[in-house]
Amino acid sequence: MSTNTSILLALRNWEFEHVRMNKLLEQLSDEQLLKEVAPGKNRGVYLLGHLTAANDGIRKLLDLGGRLHPELDQIFLSVPDKSVPEIPATPLLRAMWKEVMDKIAEDVQTLSDDEWLSKHTAVSAEDFVKEPHRNKLSIILSRTVHQAYHAGQMALLK
Amino acid sequence: MSTNTSILLALRNWEFEHVRMNKLLEQLSDEQLLKEVAPGKNRGVYLLGHLTAANDGIRKLLDLGGRLHPELDQIFLSVPDKSVPEIPATPLLRAMWKEVMDKIAEDVQTLSDDEWLSKHTAVSAEDFVKEPHRNKLSIILSRTVHQAYHAGQMALLK
Repeated sequence: MSTNTSILLALRNWEFEHVRMNKLLEQLSDEQLLKEVAPGKNRGVYLLGHLTAANDGIRKLLDLGGRLHPELDQIFLSVPDKSVPEIPATPLLRAMWKEVMDKIAEDVQTLSDDEWLSKHTAVSAEDFVKEPHRNKLSIILSRTVHQAYHAGQMALLK
Repeated sequence: MSTNTSILLALRNWEFEHVRMNKLLEQLSDEQLLKEVAPGKNRGVYLLGHLTAANDGIRKLLDLGGRLHPELDQIFLSVPDKSVPEIPATPLLRAMWKEVMDKIAEDVQTLSDDEWLSKHTAVSAEDFVKEPHRNKLSIILSRTVHQAYHAGQMALLK
């Protein structure tokens, strides 16, 4: 459990975005999520799957455990929207989002201040010496921004 | 000048979003910025003015000085898009964005770690005792997310 004010603030910022996305998902029907956020752009369901897959990688980067849904990557991370003929049904995507985000919320509480400032799992010990900003805290900061970027797009479906 | 790793990381995250928006603005023509990000939604120019006005308030919240362009508020903060018959020309908005963001980038370098963790100017000393997370660092974190939210929308104009 972190006690550092700045780290707690970053986690608070992350949690705030989590709550905002949950509210948005409550406001959007399955039918609305199937629409493109703008003509010719990604559909809401793709962005929901994309964020679920991207955020599912966080626990691994923080060395907190394995992926819950690695099968999402080939549909929502490796390829653009509309590349795969069939994607998981929207209620299932909503359930996976909840599962992934609730697990992160629980697990990030276990990291100490020193752990937050230690390297994330995708950077080597050698590179971390040269680039000490590539720590676990940087993952939460950058993923908060990533989620907000797509939340802005999904909000256009309202 | 801050030396705290977590604070420097938050500033790095802010600067990263600044660079990303500058790149996006280079990619978008004045004509593209005049379009709505999705049918019936805000125009790119409105979001550019909105972010410029919102970010222009940051230095005041961080107790670093007055507003550079308070006149933007009544066009881009107090009212929705298309409420005002005439808004500043897009080249002028681009120039104000650059002016505001360059000034913030310069000024945030002067704050010490203790100053970052001290209250921002919109919270009273009494409330800050009860809500110590309402510090200057929280402003940078929340405004980074705010900018990313609208950057995602403006990127749809590409």
